[in-house]
Amino acid sequence: MTHETIVLHGHIIDSLLLPKVLDHILQYGGSFEIAHIRIGKTREEPSDARIIVHAESPERLAEIIAAVQAHGASVEKEADCQWQEAPADGVFPDDFYVTTHLPTEVRVHGKWVPVKEIEMDLGIWLDRNDPAPHTVPMAEVRKGDQIAVGREGIRVTPLERPAHLDVFGFMGAQVSSERPHGHLITGIARRMQALRRSEARILLAGGPAIIHGGGREPLAWLIESGYIHVLFCGNALAAHDMEAHLYGTSLGLHLEGGSLAHHGHEHHLRTINRIRAIGSIEEAVRQGVITTGIMAACVRRGVKIVMAGTIRDDGPLPGVITDSVQAQAAMRATLPGVELALLVASTLHAVATGNLLPASVPTVCVDVNPAVPTKLADRGSLQAIGLVMDAASFLRELARHLGWKE
Amino acid sequence: MTHETIVLHGHIIDSLLLPKVLDHILQYGGSFEIAHIRIGKTREEPSDARIIVHAESPERLAEIIAAVQAHGASVEKEADCQWQEAPADGVFPDDFYVTTHLPTEVRVHGKWVPVKEIEMDLGIWLDRNDPAPHTVPMAEVRKGDQIAVGREGIRVTPLERPAHLDVFGFMGAQVSSERPHGHLITGIARRMQALRRSEARILLAGGPAIIHGGGREPLAWLIESGYIHVLFCGNALAAHDMEAHLYGTSLGLHLEGGSLAHHGHEHHLRTINRIRAIGSIEEAVRQGVITTGIMAACVRRGVKIVMAGTIRDDGPLPGVITDSVQAQAAMRATLPGVELALLVASTLHAVATGNLLPASVPTVCVDVNPAVPTKLADRGSLQAIGLVMDAASFLRELARHLGWKE
Amino acid sequence: MTHETIVLHGHIIDSLLLPKVLDHILQYGGSFEIAHIRIGKTREEPSDARIIVHAESPERLAEIIAAVQAHGASVEKEADCQWQEAPADGVFPDDFYVTTHLPTEVRVHGKWVPVKEIEMDLGIWLDRNDPAPHTVPMAEVRKGDQIAVGREGIRVTPLERPAHLDVFGFMGAQVSSERPHGHLITGIARRMQALRRSEARILLAGGPAIIHGGGREPLAWLIESGYIHVLFCGNALAAHDMEAHLYGTSLGLHLEGGSLAHHGHEHHLRTINRIRAIGSIEEAVRQGVITTGIMAACVRRGVKIVMAGTIRDDGPLPGVITDSVQAQAAMRATLPGVELALLVASTLHAVATGNLLPASVPTVCVDVNPAVPTKLADRGSLQAIGLVMDAASFLRELARHLGWKE
Amino acid sequence: MTHETIVLHGHIIDSLLLPKVLDHILQYGGSFEIAHIRIGKTREEPSDARIIVHAESPERLAEIIAAVQAHGASVEKEADCQWQEAPADGVFPDDFYVTTHLPTEVRVHGKWVPVKEIEMDLGIWLDRNDPAPHTVPMAEVRKGDQIAVGREGIRVTPLERPAHLDVFGFMGAQVSSERPHGHLITGIARRMQALRRSEARILLAGGPAIIHGGGREPLAWLIESGYIHVLFCGNALAAHDMEAHLYGTSLGLHLEGGSLAHHGHEHHLRTINRIRAIGSIEEAVRQGVITTGIMAACVRRGVKIVMAGTIRDDGPLPGVITDSVQAQAAMRATLPGVELALLVASTLHAVATGNLLPASVPTVCVDVNPAVPTKLADRGSLQAIGLVMDAASFLRELARHLGWKE
Repeated sequence: MTHETIVLHGHIIDSLLLPKVLDHILQYGGSFEIAHIRIGKTREEPSDARIIVHAESPERLAEIIAAVQAHGASVEKEADCQWQEAPADGVFPDDFYVTTHLPTEVRVHGKWVPVKEIEMDLGIWLDRNDPAPHTVPMAEVRKGDQIAVGREGIRVTPLERPAHLDVFGFMGAQVSSERPHGHLITGIARRMQALRRSEARILLAGGPAIIHGGGREPLAWLIESGYIHVLFCGNALAAHDMEAHLYGTSLGLHLEGGSLAHHGHEHHLRTINRIRAIGSIEEAVRQGVITTGIMAACVRRGVKIVMAGTIRDDGPLPGVITDSVQAQAAMRATLPGVELALLVASTLHAVATGNLLPASVPTVCVDVNPAVPTKLADRGSLQAIGLVMDAASFLRELARHLGWKE
Repeated sequence: MTHETIVLHGHIIDSLLLPKVLDHILQYGGSFEIAHIRIGKTREEPSDARIIVHAESPERLAEIIAAVQAHGASVEKEADCQWQEAPADGVFPDDFYVTTHLPTEVRVHGKWVPVKEIEMDLGIWLDRNDPAPHTVPMAEVRKGDQIAVGREGIRVTPLERPAHLDVFGFMGAQVSSERPHGHLITGIARRMQALRRSEARILLAGGPAIIHGGGREPLAWLIESGYIHVLFCGNALAAHDMEAHLYGTSLGLHLEGGSLAHHGHEHHLRTINRIRAIGSIEEAVRQGVITTGIMAACVRRGVKIVMAGTIRDDGPLPGVITDSVQAQAAMRATLPGVELALLVASTLHAVATGNLLPASVPTVCVDVNPAVPTKLADRGSLQAIGLVMDAASFLRELARHLGWKE
Repeated sequence: MTHETIVLHGHIIDSLLLPKVLDHILQYGGSFEIAHIRIGKTREEPSDARIIVHAESPERLAEIIAAVQAHGASVEKEADCQWQEAPADGVFPDDFYVTTHLPTEVRVHGKWVPVKEIEMDLGIWLDRNDPAPHTVPMAEVRKGDQIAVGREGIRVTPLERPAHLDVFGFMGAQVSSERPHGHLITGIARRMQALRRSEARILLAGGPAIIHGGGREPLAWLIESGYIHVLFCGNALAAHDMEAHLYGTSLGLHLEGGSLAHHGHEHHLRTINRIRAIGSIEEAVRQGVITTGIMAACVRRGVKIVMAGTIRDDGPLPGVITDSVQAQAAMRATLPGVELALLVASTLHAVATGNLLPASVPTVCVDVNPAVPTKLADRGSLQAIGLVMDAASFLRELARHLGWKE
Repeated sequence: MTHETIVLHGHIIDSLLLPKVLDHILQYGGSFEIAHIRIGKTREEPSDARIIVHAESPERLAEIIAAVQAHGASVEKEADCQWQEAPADGVFPDDFYVTTHLPTEVRVHGKWVPVKEIEMDLGIWLDRNDPAPHTVPMAEVRKGDQIAVGREGIRVTPLERPAHLDVFGFMGAQVSSERPHGHLITGIARRMQALRRSEARILLAGGPAIIHGGGREPLAWLIESGYIHVLFCGNALAAHDMEAHLYGTSLGLHLEGGSLAHHGHEHHLRTINRIRAIGSIEEAVRQGVITTGIMAACVRRGVKIVMAGTIRDDGPLPGVITDSVQAQAAMRATLPGVELALLVASTLHAVATGNLLPASVPTVCVDVNPAVPTKLADRGSLQAIGLVMDAASFLRELARHLGWKE
């Protein structure tokens, strides 16, 4: 038997940190003694606990410590963070520390320093020219870079429940199609109004079902009205949006009136071909070829668009970043300042965006398939809302709440 | 090798009858020769075909004939329908003819007579006091009743494509969340306006997700406005509808404002208990205890409600028919005159209602789970629409199209 | 501002009771002070807390108290439970106490007495002839029965994490199709072996997809081998099981060999008609008409079957309890002694059974639609497993683990 | 009113061509007269029809002709195909002909010549150095290339029902979780045995749920046994496969034994980092670092792997083609010779592969989410099977049928 003492600090009850830590110790086969606990007597006052973790082997103990550290426990004996050089371009040292999406500090020369650009599943890099460490993706590390290794001298802060309780911030909200959507959409709309006033940025990541289902007009209106500042999408959303302008169809189905247009893929492909001939979406909008819809609204309002390519794409449109590593980097570059993320009808974009966002950014995930919002709601953010509904209905209700008239 | 000659008559190309029949012959291991075919030169003119079916054994041939007859082929040698007495109450003769949901005729004394109250999976009963045969459920047959047996002297008519092409009547419409809902809902609304003018009846069968998701107001409006004439539901829809009136909640979640109310099931149960104390929903509306919502609208407008019980029910409310055979009979009794069925967010009610309706009644099936509308769209009606969206969004859009103001 | 002091006792950290209570206080708009807390230093030692809850109005305070009491908090000032007479048959007094599915005690003459037959959403009845109170469904209460009202003198015990950690008992297990099923099925199999040895009972509630998909043989084997002691199902599972014996088909599709049989519903209906003619399933097995499959195995092994009717049913088969209130009562009567519930491919039976079971019974919910296991996993039991897979694959793997050879 | 005469030839009844053509004419608002029809008297004998299509405007008529031509009708007045030069690299002429996935011929100097490398949604290119035209993706066309335009002189051949009827080749098979899987998997296994004997190639495109759910061993066995010749996947499947070898986990959950391993993403990321340090998957297998699982089996058996990158990827692994256009090209290059495609638990790969395959290649699509197989089953192939079940259960049953012993 071996043991180690861990300490918890902050809103350890409210954040569920304490029960999670005890649960993990048991699940990994350890046992615990609570050596000391002091619980804040009001909501504002933080709490403290010191817990002795027992395990049958040092390996098992290390596993437990790794697990609970990811949630915000830290090992009592404090030491500086250890660094090792990356052995090659694009390769971390063997024992590199893997980041979570929680606020993280590392101990450098006895002082705790926050890590910049927090994102999960990256390494921590200490640039010689910058006293503050920051995260670095595996593909971007360069041979010789100083990378954090091991677990000592690194700690994360569990999220606190937000002081202001609105529709965000409820604990363990079940994702279900049998829940009232009305007040959730009202709450999201209020948050968007507040963010627009405060000049914070709102991100929407969306799939082509937005267009097929009838969400094009309300989304274009939201963009024109200054409620969306960053758009993540793929080739299909952009192509069907412009197909709707040029042909009045989406996937070859007339959006109004209900009759079939001739072979659907032709419209879609001819749209892409035409924009390729013009050279860019921006130029197509400038020339007046595309004057309505989501892309036109984005160009007019200066919304930052990141279009990422996939193997499903026809064409693709000019502006689509076909390289996935470059597309990730472009998405990452737009995130600072984003304080709300709407992930609508795209599993790929929802999960990819969820991976890039720090846990502190509230997210709304909307999909008719409950598996997607369930997955996203489970990412450990206290501020995640999952809605099981179709994209168009969501966008129409949201836009109506914010003043859209059909 | 043995063979039999079958004849097809009517819109056998347009109704897909001819290719379906050929397909079945091959799938059951037979082969065919087309002895004669004459195809109508315009849409109005009917076609004829005579096909010789070959099979390796009389059993196999009988199987093929049974399969193609269910779609509308008939055996050339015509004979009167055969009848046998039911051997006991609730039991058909062994070889009883099983109905389809297509228009059906039986040959009695050399004359083809239409079968009344067509519904699938029943028997055909020739009452001595009534020259016209009609369908009878297994549970309602009485010892000694004359029941059709075998396959001779019975023929069904394949459905023709409706002359007027609106959103109903498209062939093989794929059910998908990636289709434009807007024009489908517009088309459904137009059909409802036409039916209201013509005094035909519209049926809605729905589940409690209508209430949870925010569809209570638009559905109550549709009822008040004379667009719904029959309501099939369970205990839960009625209970949550009245809970919303009494407590402002559904499943204990406040429908407005977003905060949790205390333990949800209490509201639901207290609502049921209160109505039980009053004696009936009708009386609760009359006394002014329930003044808003779906149940109040139904009582005021004289809408026929059939509430069927299930083992999930709390209470249940007075008026719930807890016996499933009686509930089926009550549903069946309301169907004459129904010319449109909206099946919303209830697998149980959607499938049960689908089983009771003749193929000629247009149906709309709405569910976030694509399995439900896919199953219903497949029931062989040419006039089925499947929408993958949540109940509340559907009802809100539909009601807006018909003039609802929030 | 008004306040009340609540006390928590037991494994309040481990059971998540403390954080849940604090969370509810905040969600209902209250605030709290922790007056005292003592946390057990080992897993075995219980903990205590005393919390002062503040709210702006007595109504709000009552709401908070109701909410936290349902999880296991109790109000400090202890008083005897209050009783009122039921005003009519089938009607509770207005303010009746609604049960949870947790162990519950009521204070009678200063002594805490456990409530028998715990089930959620019922009332508590004190029979004059029985010192121990027990739960009573709304439909079964009789005028004049003493029913618990209000909230004083009633307390529930939060569930503790089971001492023995196997696949049951993990906290907040996410339901997902992207999780390893293998070890979960292994764990379920081990639990079933242990229960068989200890003569505890195992319940399976299942839908007809078990037959259609190929789960008939492994389930029949599980029954024959003594692993299933209670079966909840509907008319369809039983009918398709016996159709498979009589015709080799399920819904008219040949289970072996892959060719279509002729019109599927005929087989299904002829099976039901034949059993109706014989009089009962038991008699059909006894006469050797049905010798293989699930029903035959149940009859031979004396497994208690409860078949509940629905409005989807054809026939129905003799033995189907068509009245839903009677069917619930029959289900309830079989539950004492059940220590594991397998809920397979039937939303209706899964939810209905979940409503009847106390929280202490481990449950496994299997469905291809993730909405069903998600809903069940959320019912507050610490011992719930959700598997997103088809019924037949689950039963085949489970039976193989227990020794089935195909 | 204007009109045009179209001709149909071949198995126009059996292939559903005739009813589809008539249906399209009506749906686009046209009308028709059947000028001549001769239907083959046996299955082998082809049929002919000449149909006069009427429409109210030349534009509407052109739309109808375009729609019916895509299914295999051709315009009676035959002319050579028209060609135009591509105006720029990556841009087709405005009126370029968009391919379908059906066999296609173009008329060059009065002679019908088949188009090579048939794939839908591409252009047709007549290389000056090659008498046979072939398809070309938009991104690969070069300025000045001769590209087919308009619709004259181009015809497609509708698929015939395969002569040999096995589980492939049934018409309009409904995708449902309520269908017997057993015989479908048996039929797929038989087809795979036949293809292995004939040295045709089998493609599997799969997602990471294969690993999480327990499908790694049977899939590795299928590869080792020579049943899979091409593998399409993403970074995640490969990473989790090798994580399973190095750590015994998938997404951090132990595949055996059921306990959690420490923070899952670490294993996954450390696996990717390690392979990046080694340089390639092939080298990792060669060095004996990876000796079990799917990747090891592929390297040992010389299976062609195409790994395509997405924005969800960590790392990615060496060998992942991060550029989506290059990845499509790599996938396309492996398709010649593929005679069966298994699309398992990956919407992205299933749809992308479906887009690349000619209609004549039988496909099997397996997913727990019915939306995916429904979408694929609808792509117009007569030989598509959709199975609603989890990936691991499918692969285990399939491998068992082919001789795998656990």
